[in-house]
Amino acid sequence: MPVSMYKISVPVFIRALNVLAGLLDKAEAHAAEKKVPLDDLFNARLAPDMLPLSGQIQRVSDTSKNAIGRLTGVPAPSFPDEEKNFAELRERIAKTIAYLETVKPSDLEKSEDREVTISFGKLKFTFTGVDYLLKFALPNFFFHVTTTYDILRNRGVAVGKVDYLGTYN
Amino acid sequence: MPVSMYKISVPVFIRALNVLAGLLDKAEAHAAEKKVPLDDLFNARLAPDMLPLSGQIQRVSDTSKNAIGRLTGVPAPSFPDEEKNFAELRERIAKTIAYLETVKPSDLEKSEDREVTISFGKLKFTFTGVDYLLKFALPNFFFHVTTTYDILRNRGVAVGKVDYLGTYN
Repeated sequence: MPVSMYKISVPVFIRALNVLAGLLDKAEAHAAEKKVPLDDLFNARLAPDMLPLSGQIQRVSDTSKNAIGRLTGVPAPSFPDEEKNFAELRERIAKTIAYLETVKPSDLEKSEDREVTISFGKLKFTFTGVDYLLKFALPNFFFHVTTTYDILRNRGVAVGKVDYLGTYN
Repeated sequence: MPVSMYKISVPVFIRALNVLAGLLDKAEAHAAEKKVPLDDLFNARLAPDMLPLSGQIQRVSDTSKNAIGRLTGVPAPSFPDEEKNFAELRERIAKTIAYLETVKPSDLEKSEDREVTISFGKLKFTFTGVDYLLKFALPNFFFHVTTTYDILRNRGVAVGKVDYLGTYN
């Protein structure tokens, strides 16, 4: 039996959002242990013109919830990028998961053929739902999860691959 | 119509491997323009105990081809990690794409239910094929593609999000 659009999206997003919350725990523990201001990690980035940790997490939130909004045809809630500390980033992650948990497999039925148009800078692309999910939304989503992890590694936070992949039961 | 295991894996991998080859082009152009030794980029890493650029690309190759080997039940070719320069990394990418292009949609039929066991350090996990692909193989694959990009950004190479996402026709 082939795989549903729901299975390729909602649980994949929720899993990685939980991973992200775990990475924030490790970052906070690191800051406490090494007496590093937490703001240094909140604002850390890999290049001057890349988003900092906080921005990466905001984009993980947006890339997941907006993908589902586009695929279901019912816009996802809008969360302004106003987080100022780790507690608020956690809240953003929790709100994103809470929204994703309201989405039912039936909401995504037939979304593989739904037309999705994306504006990207000056560019505009039109996809089928499944192409949008596989060629744009998932790569973009994992980009921001991985870059969050990479920023923490670059700052010496003791996270490892298992913290990125998450647990398997 | 739900989505086939083939569609969620082989073309997704090939697309990102082509992205990776494009990133190497940009890295080489940067090194030539800034008169930076190419080896500096080949060996660049985000943390002392993370893999360098070359290792990230070897893992992109392995995570894609071995995922398909596990899902089809026919082991993928083994490519030793012996690349010493950009030309050899390109060859590794090309060999990986060439292997993936031999895989037919029918080779992955029913792979969603195939049992896949992964050893990860001291840990061992058993998945259904679809859970293996969505919870392990794809996140791990995108991890290494993104980290390649992040290493180049961290070293000042002028790549942007479009170079990571690739083109859409």
